[in-house]
Amino acid sequence: MDAETILDRCDELAAISSDPERLVRVHLSKEHRAANDLVAQWMTEAGLSTWQDAAGNQCGRLEGREPGLPALLLGSHIDTVPDAGRYDGMLGVLLAIAVVGRLPKDLPFAVEVVAFSDEEGTRFGTALLGSRALAGTWDDAWWSLQDERGISLFEAFQDFGLDPARLPSAFRRPEQLVGYLEAHIEQGPFLEDADKRLAVVTSIAGARRFELTMTGKAGHAGGSPYDRRKDALVGASELVVEIERLSIEQHVIGTVGKLEAFPGGVNVIPGRVEFSLDLRAEFDEDRDEALRLMFEAAQSIAERRGLSFHEKEIYRADAVVCDLDLRGAIEAGIRSTGDDEPMAFWSRAGHDGMAVVAVAPIAMLFLRCKGGVSHHPDESVRQGDVAAALKAYESAVLVVAKSVE
Amino acid sequence: MDAETILDRCDELAAISSDPERLVRVHLSKEHRAANDLVAQWMTEAGLSTWQDAAGNQCGRLEGREPGLPALLLGSHIDTVPDAGRYDGMLGVLLAIAVVGRLPKDLPFAVEVVAFSDEEGTRFGTALLGSRALAGTWDDAWWSLQDERGISLFEAFQDFGLDPARLPSAFRRPEQLVGYLEAHIEQGPFLEDADKRLAVVTSIAGARRFELTMTGKAGHAGGSPYDRRKDALVGASELVVEIERLSIEQHVIGTVGKLEAFPGGVNVIPGRVEFSLDLRAEFDEDRDEALRLMFEAAQSIAERRGLSFHEKEIYRADAVVCDLDLRGAIEAGIRSTGDDEPMAFWSRAGHDGMAVVAVAPIAMLFLRCKGGVSHHPDESVRQGDVAAALKAYESAVLVVAKSVE
Repeated sequence: MDAETILDRCDELAAISSDPERLVRVHLSKEHRAANDLVAQWMTEAGLSTWQDAAGNQCGRLEGREPGLPALLLGSHIDTVPDAGRYDGMLGVLLAIAVVGRLPKDLPFAVEVVAFSDEEGTRFGTALLGSRALAGTWDDAWWSLQDERGISLFEAFQDFGLDPARLPSAFRRPEQLVGYLEAHIEQGPFLEDADKRLAVVTSIAGARRFELTMTGKAGHAGGSPYDRRKDALVGASELVVEIERLSIEQHVIGTVGKLEAFPGGVNVIPGRVEFSLDLRAEFDEDRDEALRLMFEAAQSIAERRGLSFHEKEIYRADAVVCDLDLRGAIEAGIRSTGDDEPMAFWSRAGHDGMAVVAVAPIAMLFLRCKGGVSHHPDESVRQGDVAAALKAYESAVLVVAKSVE
Repeated sequence: MDAETILDRCDELAAISSDPERLVRVHLSKEHRAANDLVAQWMTEAGLSTWQDAAGNQCGRLEGREPGLPALLLGSHIDTVPDAGRYDGMLGVLLAIAVVGRLPKDLPFAVEVVAFSDEEGTRFGTALLGSRALAGTWDDAWWSLQDERGISLFEAFQDFGLDPARLPSAFRRPEQLVGYLEAHIEQGPFLEDADKRLAVVTSIAGARRFELTMTGKAGHAGGSPYDRRKDALVGASELVVEIERLSIEQHVIGTVGKLEAFPGGVNVIPGRVEFSLDLRAEFDEDRDEALRLMFEAAQSIAERRGLSFHEKEIYRADAVVCDLDLRGAIEAGIRSTGDDEPMAFWSRAGHDGMAVVAVAPIAMLFLRCKGGVSHHPDESVRQGDVAAALKAYESAVLVVAKSVE
């Protein structure tokens, strides 16, 4: 399984979408089922024994020199954002399978590949559901999360053929695990700018996500003079602009990705706006200070306009530092590709490792992607970079094996 | 049929909704069918002969002193905005039916009541479809308008049991019509501020409506530094704020009622925003100058942010002046209620009269509504005001009858 095959299989996976026009594959959907089945088949071909765990994660295992040894986990996720690219997540899963296919059968640990069921949080608004189940950091409050059609996570598990009561069987314990390595496209422009193919990740940014609501009063567009309007959309729009300004000023990354005005009539003043905030930074303190300023701005806009502002946290992950030994193994892997000065930087994006770190040390390998573009159909990687990543990833696993001996 | 009955029937109509939680009744829906049937029944009880015309307008006719005379039209609309109040449109239809029930049978013209099928434009984004059909100012390009589910107006006609080819039979000719009178809630605060119950309308504001699109580039929320982002939502938000600022400065009324960001992932930079603009003013020149400034601002925001801005006009109606004789009749009607100085002002909201004026002189009677609130479930009128409107409306028709003799 070489770089070309990996890219072909990314295309194959990308064809499994709930929308014929664009790639969307969400947690516990029938496309999730089809993707799991296909990944399981590739795992089997690579010599792994496979199973789907109680959280819908597709798993495969290669025993080490004796059965039942603790496992080094390799993996990434196979769910997507709406209108996604074909490499975010999937490429990491395929690289992991390809690496395992090349490993000797007498390693001092087992190697497992995990295709996490939910990292993006597209369907239920809460991310890392697959990896948090594996890490045993599941919150039972999530069972009542609802998707856009009002289906709860609990019901979605059942519809997928999973028994919510059996979820704990997906939990892993630290003594079963050696570590977790993930390969992923960078989703940013730093490698391309530096004319490099690969980088090692130093830490993963902490992110917090909120559902925001600005509430005013709907009214007829013609009949309401401006001094009597309580237009929720103009208030929300002021806040969107202010969130960008404060993010730049405070050196954090704030994004409003969802926004919709209600009731949504062309001639009706919006009475309510529902929107989202995703906020991340290298350091949690910077992120939280920026958040304080943003919510202060929101309250002040709301007061001035006679609106009310409400926020609800739906996700929080603090910054996670990668394990120094595993980082060293990945750096050694990158050196084995002929790059003597491996680049190292922090990940602006969240990754499954943020959850897995609760039960195992983690590290990550980044690959260059074209224009830094991700979460978009234009996501693109070079075959040569994939080949280099495959070599670096395999070498890294062998370095870890050596350190365990 | 007194004011109390009229209000009870407004409640009865308000119960016909496609959403059990809020009032929504759109063009050519099964709720439209149910509302037409109920209105037809009330028309019959009031002594009218009834039919549904080829555009889905529910009509009723009371012959004058001899059959086949030209008709004075009374009416309003029975479609609603999403999450509507219960009086906008419906009250005007019920007042018209009540007036006809009280009229002598020997008038020098026929009297017809029309419950227009579409005034708000909620379903297809283009307003006044019912009254424009009646006025014969139908544009065949509208047949391909689509609703949210992709159903075209042409298909919706067929699904409703109407034959699009027969539409011209709904057209009326000027020689068949004496005029058009409509009663409507004010949808603004001027009557309440002046402590008055009724007003005569001098003119109806010209409105233009646009579908706006701001296009940038979607990308991962974490991975895109600000200087590389093309965030369509921040651009659109700047424009929403600027539209309000320019509207106040230019003394026009601009409203963004719809706005939605795509693809809409919580951690995805919006690549596209679809939004609407409704712009109206007392004078068409002021409106068009403000529009020029708004689009100039849009282009400048788009250029600065690397976005592209696109606008498409979906509706245009120029300001319509009410007929002086019919205005006089309504003023006389208001005086008959004991108000010696009838208030007169222009309508900020659009009304079916804007279409009907193509084939008949028009005038309007406004009733006070609580807080000026409309297009909202809090729409409220006082029973005493409805009784006064009924008396004024009836008197106005008799004044028109006298002037025709």
